[in-house]
Amino acid sequence: MILTVTLNAALDVTYETPSVEWGGSNRVGTVRQRAGGKGVNVARVAAALGSAVVATGLVGGVTGDLVLADLDDAGLRHDFVVVGGTSRRTLTVVETSNGAATVLNEPGPAVTADEWQAFRERYGRLQSQADVVVVSGSLPPGVPADAYATLITDSPVPVILDADGETLAFGVQGGPALVKPNADELARATGKTSVIEGARALQSKGAQAVLVSLGPGGLVAVTAEGCWRAVPPEPVNGNPTGAGDAAVAAAARALLAGDAWPDLLRNAVALSAAAVHAPVAGDFDAAAYTRLTKEVTVTPL
Amino acid sequence: MILTVTLNAALDVTYETPSVEWGGSNRVGTVRQRAGGKGVNVARVAAALGSAVVATGLVGGVTGDLVLADLDDAGLRHDFVVVGGTSRRTLTVVETSNGAATVLNEPGPAVTADEWQAFRERYGRLQSQADVVVVSGSLPPGVPADAYATLITDSPVPVILDADGETLAFGVQGGPALVKPNADELARATGKTSVIEGARALQSKGAQAVLVSLGPGGLVAVTAEGCWRAVPPEPVNGNPTGAGDAAVAAAARALLAGDAWPDLLRNAVALSAAAVHAPVAGDFDAAAYTRLTKEVTVTPL
Ligand SMILES: Nc1ncnc2c1ncn2[C@@H]1O[C@H](COP(=O)(O)OP(=O)(O)O)[C@@H](O)[C@H]1O
Ligand SMILES: Nc1ncnc2c1ncn2[C@@H]1O[C@H](COP(=O)(O)OP(=O)(O)O)[C@@H](O)[C@H]1O
Repeated sequence: MILTVTLNAALDVTYETPSVEWGGSNRVGTVRQRAGGKGVNVARVAAALGSAVVATGLVGGVTGDLVLADLDDAGLRHDFVVVGGTSRRTLTVVETSNGAATVLNEPGPAVTADEWQAFRERYGRLQSQADVVVVSGSLPPGVPADAYATLITDSPVPVILDADGETLAFGVQGGPALVKPNADELARATGKTSVIEGARALQSKGAQAVLVSLGPGGLVAVTAEGCWRAVPPEPVNGNPTGAGDAAVAAAARALLAGDAWPDLLRNAVALSAAAVHAPVAGDFDAAAYTRLTKEVTVTPL
Repeated sequence: MILTVTLNAALDVTYETPSVEWGGSNRVGTVRQRAGGKGVNVARVAAALGSAVVATGLVGGVTGDLVLADLDDAGLRHDFVVVGGTSRRTLTVVETSNGAATVLNEPGPAVTADEWQAFRERYGRLQSQADVVVVSGSLPPGVPADAYATLITDSPVPVILDADGETLAFGVQGGPALVKPNADELARATGKTSVIEGARALQSKGAQAVLVSLGPGGLVAVTAEGCWRAVPPEPVNGNPTGAGDAAVAAAARALLAGDAWPDLLRNAVALSAAAVHAPVAGDFDAAAYTRLTKEVTVTPL
């Protein structure tokens, strides 16, 4: 079973409107909302491919209730700790005339020491049934900055970490099996602009392997067994939000199956590029995925 | 008692952040939310001045629950019909570095014929206790375009109408005691750019009197007893959202008290300018209000 951890679960709200007058008053055409947060997206993608998945994390308030209701609707197994604060919304304003998307992320609920302790206990229980753990996304206020390091250290099974900034920098110290920064996150966490040097810096701090995502440029893996690069056959013109989560879902499935790194990379690039084809984070285009697995190029570095 | 009608009640959400990268990904600093919709703002202002007020209208879903909970917190009397759809959010994104405010209004719940009928019955009951009625703001989908005309015709007591577009054009046909368009709304509804000509056009369609608001330029009243203009002593640099609602609240109190038009105008300009001093719609600066009532100039036209 793949356990995904989403400490700052969100209600993803999408507004669609032909164009927005910034600084003015606008009517929104379409409003959609669904459960989100990186871990939730990973769980959706892995479950859609037939993996046994449990989504855990923290939710609270009316937005938290809507998150859980949506997970039920989607048939996703979940086991969240309910906190007293209110889960955040993440708003994406899509201007349909030009495709521009503006994202506004609320900070999330303030979490108490007792709530964090309750989560650690729940996590301990869930983990005993897990084969791979994925911890990803931002931390809500009140959760210790080194929370991911703690969860990784507590885990007897391989953990994949996908985070940014301090959360990433602290997290790698827990010794995750795999870290998945994108190029910006890698540069912010290490100060290195070279992908290989940055990945090596994360390894020197504790990461066992590093998967760097490069948008349409695909993925680079830096591991104890070697380094590889995987590239999609062509850039996809679509919605890149959630593509990184699809790559993480593929990586979790590959760790579970014991796949070799080149196979992991091939599937991760194909699945994440197929996610760019789908309009919503957490979805992917199944036909594109099948086609892309044959078309991705994997080369040793 | 002043009865305010808010058919498209809203949860007003405000995001504050130093600046927004449009088309990019942004973290929101502060999130505030409270019950809104023009009628709710009118009710808040009138209640703060000591008027007996009841807020009615339509609410639904989780946002509707939050609206009602916030009215309870504010100690405002309310009697809303609960519908099956979900009340809208109205989002204001304030960039604190430059003061720019971008407003994104969701459309509102789809209302059925039975729900509209249920509201008419509730309204009939509430109205029998009312001395003045205020109908204001947009209509949610499913409510007939001439809804305000119906509510005005159904009412034995004076009704103030504050609406835009078709809703305003149809509404005046019900013969409201007073209509409060701003200059843009007046021009859209009548095609006239002259304030006096536009006001006369609304009178010819049924409005008994017209109060045109001109932002920092104050108010013009066109009535059967004469025409007046009232001007604030100076433009206020603040938040004009809700200033029109404060003007309507003052007008409702004046109709209730039987004040002469010049007195109504003086109070309406002072109160609405004092509302610009307050950062949130539905609030006003009490000290500024007292001062401004002495400083507003009222002249016959
Ligand atoms: N435009 C694109 N065309 C094809 N594949 C893409 C595109 N954008 C992203 N991908 C795939 O998704 C993966 C993750 O995307 P990226 O934007 O780097 O991650 P994140 O979403 O974490 O910022 C990439 O490694 C790549 O395989
Ligand atoms: N900048 C300002 N300075 C002083 N008074 C103002 C200012 N903006 C609005 N007001 C007052 O508020 C009233 C309503 O404002 P206006 O913007 O015309 O209405 P609405 O909010 O309905 O668009 C005006 O008639 C005026 O009395």
